[in-house]
Amino acid sequence: MLHTLVSDYQATINAFLKGQNFGEQPTELYEPIRYILGLGGKRMRPLLTLMAHHIYKDLDHSAVAVAAGVEVFHNFSLLHDDIMDNAPMRRGQPTVHEKWDANVAILSGDVMLVRAYQLMMQVPDHNLRTILGRFSEVAAQVCEGQQWDMNFEGYKEISKEHYLEMIKLKTAVLLGFALEMGAVTANANEADRAILNEVGIKAGLGFQLMDDLLDVYGEADKFGKMVGGDIVANKKTFLLLEALTLAKDTPLEAELDFWLNYKGEDKVEKVRIVTAIYNTFGVKETTEALISQYFQEAMVALSSLNVQHPERKLPLMKLLVQLMSRES
Amino acid sequence: MLHTLVSDYQATINAFLKGQNFGEQPTELYEPIRYILGLGGKRMRPLLTLMAHHIYKDLDHSAVAVAAGVEVFHNFSLLHDDIMDNAPMRRGQPTVHEKWDANVAILSGDVMLVRAYQLMMQVPDHNLRTILGRFSEVAAQVCEGQQWDMNFEGYKEISKEHYLEMIKLKTAVLLGFALEMGAVTANANEADRAILNEVGIKAGLGFQLMDDLLDVYGEADKFGKMVGGDIVANKKTFLLLEALTLAKDTPLEAELDFWLNYKGEDKVEKVRIVTAIYNTFGVKETTEALISQYFQEAMVALSSLNVQHPERKLPLMKLLVQLMSRES
Repeated sequence: MLHTLVSDYQATINAFLKGQNFGEQPTELYEPIRYILGLGGKRMRPLLTLMAHHIYKDLDHSAVAVAAGVEVFHNFSLLHDDIMDNAPMRRGQPTVHEKWDANVAILSGDVMLVRAYQLMMQVPDHNLRTILGRFSEVAAQVCEGQQWDMNFEGYKEISKEHYLEMIKLKTAVLLGFALEMGAVTANANEADRAILNEVGIKAGLGFQLMDDLLDVYGEADKFGKMVGGDIVANKKTFLLLEALTLAKDTPLEAELDFWLNYKGEDKVEKVRIVTAIYNTFGVKETTEALISQYFQEAMVALSSLNVQHPERKLPLMKLLVQLMSRES
Repeated sequence: MLHTLVSDYQATINAFLKGQNFGEQPTELYEPIRYILGLGGKRMRPLLTLMAHHIYKDLDHSAVAVAAGVEVFHNFSLLHDDIMDNAPMRRGQPTVHEKWDANVAILSGDVMLVRAYQLMMQVPDHNLRTILGRFSEVAAQVCEGQQWDMNFEGYKEISKEHYLEMIKLKTAVLLGFALEMGAVTANANEADRAILNEVGIKAGLGFQLMDDLLDVYGEADKFGKMVGGDIVANKKTFLLLEALTLAKDTPLEAELDFWLNYKGEDKVEKVRIVTAIYNTFGVKETTEALISQYFQEAMVALSSLNVQHPERKLPLMKLLVQLMSRES
């Protein structure tokens, strides 16, 4: 299989996922797995695995199975995170704990984690221990990231470093793992594996910061959810942390504090004023600069990859550019 | 290490678990793991692995690591089941979701499942795929059993076959797996692995039915929890299903139905009368006969195991006898 278009890679993953028999009975356990995987999404993580593999070799069964395992793991984490975050909707549809109940979402999630391991096991013996070992490390890190994220809700102050460490664990390490697995399933050398992991981590940090940014500065018609949702929820994003730091000991400190403790109904006004405070401190530009820095580091790392057919890096490079310039 | 006493095996497991570094930060993620593993318990499942391994060989690292993995997996399932069952106490102490909250219990449980895989991976390459493959199958079955158990709460009728299938999935397959892993880590042949799996499944069925029985007919001072708790909660145990079947079209059908729908406060009276109905239909004797049948089948299977040192089966045989005659 030789792919150049993102949609070709997506079709490969979707066909593979559709062909999986995750289980039948009891239906409460297995129907939610088909449901959440059926909600679609960009399949960004498995795309990364396939594109990285493709730098070295044409796609084979083990690359596609591991890519699918990464996607199943990601959806397991969504299932459980959505319970913890009390999220009613996911990709425009009710979340599993809303459509069924929290117990179903816990247990279906558990079995998805097991199925992710089973997909990761569909590799030759010489890669089995590496892949499962790295997967286990990364899976635990993703849990750590989610726990830090929940802890942050109750913290008064969070350093920039701690915030970046949280999004690294919660989001970036899985993107790094996804790219690394492309190299591992292609039997690339250790150095290449490490570089691709680095590419994914940097891109993941940029990707998550872009999420924070778009929530405030995205265009409503392209973004797909309410602009300013994070501000309304007092979510401790990079933008808010930056504004809190810069507002310290200025007249805007009290103003920001007032809106963070605001219990009234006028959400539009809250979003308007907090955004204005962000603007005063140039938070948008600071965030954009950091995003751009991470994506450039990712690109530099990818460029440094010394491979036989450098032109085969192109689909991945294009994807990184797309991620960096996304509007939703 | 040559063990003969149950307490020696328990000490081996407890020392190994205590030496594990499950993780440090964030503490909300890792402290609950140490907490639940620290609550103790009989360590029955890892005992089974060690005793089965011991039939063939002295204990080695891989046997102890896999045994510990079984125990960590079992405790993962307790963490998540306790949320679903809304259980306030476990081994006389608050459950994790009570002591922390449900989110912490979900996420710590998730990371315990990952840690169980990591423990299972501490085996030589030639056993890695077998162990992780079987573990994944069994882990999914345990989830299926828990989902059936929850479904049963809403069912009006449950056949005896369906009930036995549920307890097989929820409890017995893990005991079968635990014994099988003793054989696998000792590099025993396929036939022996299958026999030990069978021993565990039969013992597990007997063990779970014994649980149902002791809840009604256990002696309060030995049982450790309130006798009749299942009756008060209308839990669909083997005893209740048997009584419902036998009461059909008899004058006691309405009486049983009345107490199942009873919303009053007199729990003692409810337990007294439902127990009397059980007695009328000889439910105690039927259950005892089935338990005894399963344990005998387990013993016969274990006896059929053709090994070099049959006397090495003794600790396991003694444990099975203990499980069969337990009073709590």
